Amino acid sequence: MRATSSKYSIGVDYGTNSVRAVVFALEDGAEIASGVFAYPTGVDGVVVSASDPQLARQNPADYIEGFFTSVSGALKKASKADRKFKPENVAGIGVDTTGSTPVPVGKDGMPLSFDRKFKDNPNAYAWLWKDHTAYAEAEAITDAAREMNMPYLDKCGGKYSSEWFWSKIWHCLKVDKRVFDAAYSWVELSDLVPAFITGNIDPLTMRRNICAAGHKAMFAAEWGGLPSKEFLGKLSPRLAELRDRLYEQAVPSDWPAGRLSPSVAEKVGLPSGLPVAVGALDCHHGAVGSGIKPGTLVKIIGTSTCDAMVAPAGADVPVIPGVCGIVPGSIIPGMTGIEAGQSAVGDIFKWYVDKHAPAEFSKGNAYANLEKAAAELKPGESGLLALDWNNGNRCVLVDPLLTGALVGTTLHTTAPGIYRALVEATAFGSLVIIQRVEEYGTKIKDVVTCGGLAEKSPLMMQIYADVLGRPIRISRSAQSCALGAAIFGAIVAGEFSGGIAAAQKAMTGTRDIVYKPIRGNVKTYGKLYGLYRRLHDAFGVADSSGNLADVMKELIEIRKSVR
Amino acid sequence: MRATSSKYSIGVDYGTNSVRAVVFALEDGAEIASGVFAYPTGVDGVVVSASDPQLARQNPADYIEGFFTSVSGALKKASKADRKFKPENVAGIGVDTTGSTPVPVGKDGMPLSFDRKFKDNPNAYAWLWKDHTAYAEAEAITDAAREMNMPYLDKCGGKYSSEWFWSKIWHCLKVDKRVFDAAYSWVELSDLVPAFITGNIDPLTMRRNICAAGHKAMFAAEWGGLPSKEFLGKLSPRLAELRDRLYEQAVPSDWPAGRLSPSVAEKVGLPSGLPVAVGALDCHHGAVGSGIKPGTLVKIIGTSTCDAMVAPAGADVPVIPGVCGIVPGSIIPGMTGIEAGQSAVGDIFKWYVDKHAPAEFSKGNAYANLEKAAAELKPGESGLLALDWNNGNRCVLVDPLLTGALVGTTLHTTAPGIYRALVEATAFGSLVIIQRVEEYGTKIKDVVTCGGLAEKSPLMMQIYADVLGRPIRISRSAQSCALGAAIFGAIVAGEFSGGIAAAQKAMTGTRDIVYKPIRGNVKTYGKLYGLYRRLHDAFGVADSSGNLADVMKELIEIRKSVR
Repeated sequence: MRATSSKYSIGVDYGTNSVRAVVFALEDGAEIASGVFAYPTGVDGVVVSASDPQLARQNPADYIEGFFTSVSGALKKASKADRKFKPENVAGIGVDTTGSTPVPVGKDGMPLSFDRKFKDNPNAYAWLWKDHTAYAEAEAITDAAREMNMPYLDKCGGKYSSEWFWSKIWHCLKVDKRVFDAAYSWVELSDLVPAFITGNIDPLTMRRNICAAGHKAMFAAEWGGLPSKEFLGKLSPRLAELRDRLYEQAVPSDWPAGRLSPSVAEKVGLPSGLPVAVGALDCHHGAVGSGIKPGTLVKIIGTSTCDAMVAPAGADVPVIPGVCGIVPGSIIPGMTGIEAGQSAVGDIFKWYVDKHAPAEFSKGNAYANLEKAAAELKPGESGLLALDWNNGNRCVLVDPLLTGALVGTTLHTTAPGIYRALVEATAFGSLVIIQRVEEYGTKIKDVVTCGGLAEKSPLMMQIYADVLGRPIRISRSAQSCALGAAIFGAIVAGEFSGGIAAAQKAMTGTRDIVYKPIRGNVKTYGKLYGLYRRLHDAFGVADSSGNLADVMKELIEIRKSVR
Repeated sequence: MRATSSKYSIGVDYGTNSVRAVVFALEDGAEIASGVFAYPTGVDGVVVSASDPQLARQNPADYIEGFFTSVSGALKKASKADRKFKPENVAGIGVDTTGSTPVPVGKDGMPLSFDRKFKDNPNAYAWLWKDHTAYAEAEAITDAAREMNMPYLDKCGGKYSSEWFWSKIWHCLKVDKRVFDAAYSWVELSDLVPAFITGNIDPLTMRRNICAAGHKAMFAAEWGGLPSKEFLGKLSPRLAELRDRLYEQAVPSDWPAGRLSPSVAEKVGLPSGLPVAVGALDCHHGAVGSGIKPGTLVKIIGTSTCDAMVAPAGADVPVIPGVCGIVPGSIIPGMTGIEAGQSAVGDIFKWYVDKHAPAEFSKGNAYANLEKAAAELKPGESGLLALDWNNGNRCVLVDPLLTGALVGTTLHTTAPGIYRALVEATAFGSLVIIQRVEEYGTKIKDVVTCGGLAEKSPLMMQIYADVLGRPIRISRSAQSCALGAAIFGAIVAGEFSGGIAAAQKAMTGTRDIVYKPIRGNVKTYGKLYGLYRRLHDAFGVADSSGNLADVMKELIEIRKSVR
């Protein structure tokens, strides 16, 4: 069933450590070739600070260089991999990036850090999604919205995050006035890349995407776009002023950002004038590339996770407390996108494997050794229960200052037991989100995962199926985000007259393996989840009450019952 | 100042994994020589069960063989080490052992396991102090004492323990009636050894020590010795019957158990007829060997810890809830002994170092590597807080089913941070005990430690000084328990006309180094201890209330303030 023939689209996916460009065939979504560029600045591409573990920035120059290198690399490989492939057969380009990753730019739209004055100043760099320096500002924004009785937080879980647009900009104003003053505007990375490659880079007129605007900047049509000057002025008069140099409109990715500029086109070896789609956040395009539809939760599992859902067209989605974002058109145009997520998943496993795997397990592949040993344990057998908050809690508590915990250790506790408890904790954290979303009317029937962990950890997939009590599939493409971006590249090029659904039907799918819940495990995890919720509320909810004195005993009872 | 000249005493100290006999000079407490015997049966001398982690038994044959080998070994070495030494110059022998470690014996007083029928049956072995199989019986005994409004638990913290005499015997009756039926009586290890070596081994007449009787078997003069038949009969008629085959009197260690029997004397190379003191629990003799006096807490730090205190002579010590034992004469005759303790200290560090030290720290001496790295951290710097309950909580919660916990982990959490948090947690656990004892009128001015860890971990000693807010010294003798036993050996031989105090003055002392509290650390640990108490009560106290939602935040605030 070929929707088109011998046509291609390119998706460019900006991750936390690298950017990857992938050439997809429109007829079946086959990945023809890809090119990767690891950001050279900082530690694994992230500029960090020895004195402040909350700081995480990126050098915008890496993004530009990354586009050139990854796209030209992908094209060269595509020519070798597929004889039918010619750059002229590429229909369009789509882009997705991390976010909220705002970049201060000059009047010309170029990153401030391109100016020699700011070349080495991390405050003039991109403020990477996982930068948490602005937690005090996030709290103040939340407080202000509540005090002024503004609806701005209704769409983003009731709490503004330190990871988001306004917190970061305001924090910049507080800690580095020179950078704030020099910034004519601030641009999300997901807008900066399409703007740069199309040349539509004037900050006042460049296309801004609804995905980042709605999920991260409190933009909504119903209150006239960004928060009012009056509200921003309460935070700081300088933020109110800045509003005039931001945007009045934000659009979905089925809108074009423009056409590939001649200079960029020449540099990468593509035809000039190629349609470029409006960008989006990686998770949202990943959801599209994983075949998201009403009833299907797509989990993009990486260092953190992003949970994407869509309400059926026409459904009225209420405010869902603690869920990160509810934005019409942010995933699939015409449907309301719901975004949630966990601030650390793969990062927790990596932390444990890299820094804590005992010598006994660190010979060869420590990750594989721990997975294997952990897989031999039954649910509940270790007697352990963890909280998965090593990088704070994004949903539903929206609290970056929460930390991890492990309860139930004995003198017999083993490393595989701890490792398994960490995996289970992330699954419990995921169930908290699903239950919250369902409670507010959006039902979740099954789960599709994508990302490296989904592919390499059958243990994790089975634990998730057992904890979530729903079948779990894996997106067919190993590059679902890039695939989603490529789908929008094709759409803005006029391919797929049936729209996104037709493109998804042709280009996306899941793998043969299905992880089904195992009845006995579901039962044990049901009990453990009850205890997880107890810890979750005791440590995470300010007005919760109750006593934990039976938690350790219950863990022992469960351990006994499964042994 | 020589109290005597060219005289010696032998202390024989039965530990968890081995027995050690030490020859001391009476004039200055110098350790002349020692002999060690590692129990050959089981894992490091402990018979364990793959299916029940609560089970811990020992083969009584190891105790007998251990006496012969350790004492004769010590004597041989003493002759080489000290030209003045002759076996004829040994004044007496004292014995201390772990406990409550009851052994089922036949009518002849010999361990049942010496009978071929029971040779391989762990229920006929010694029920080692750390055996926790009888936790249900312990609870039932506590309940019964409360229901019958009996005062029996007043002296042992208000809760009977699974580690103690009656719990274990009752559990034996429930799980192995054959062994219970065959047992004519039950004898604490601390009585069995003196009985065996003196030949005064008739269970009905052998000397029983007040230390084990009072602390572990609810024996007190004020209610007529052991609990009444009426009470025991409520538990089981068989226990009431057994009472007639136990004892009516229990005495301190300044009473003789008898004189060394000719056959034993010949076997080890000592004069027949040597005075042998009544035994005691290791911790109590260790306290004497460390120079215990009113106002000084002696901490014997090993796999677990034992905290020993004495109230001034004549002081009336009330019931102290959750403190293991309050027994007149149990440490120093004439003063009331107060015993408390923590069920795992060295065991927790060993567990972490052996099973969880990451490869990076496990090259060479993992323990030393972790200590060194942990010592470089400031108090509070890791942001971590642990509960030290990996082997349950002995005081003041008296709950073997509690487990360990670790709160405050982030993606930056390191192994030395965790290791230090575990050391700190044991110090916080110790402070809980001190505060409880002081609250009930016995003041603690300073602390003397003994045991291997006290000697080899300056980090631990400084943390303890800072957490407890009191100067900490180390007992001069590396074998304080054996020294205490030897002191009583000398006393029953008629040495030291000034009694225990005179013997302590001559033979005990502390090392030159004093760990003093450091003001800044004391302040930080004061805050952390407040949070520790919050976790302690939330997880450990059934009727506690309150919310933990600020605990993780406070840890971050403390971390920030010390960085």
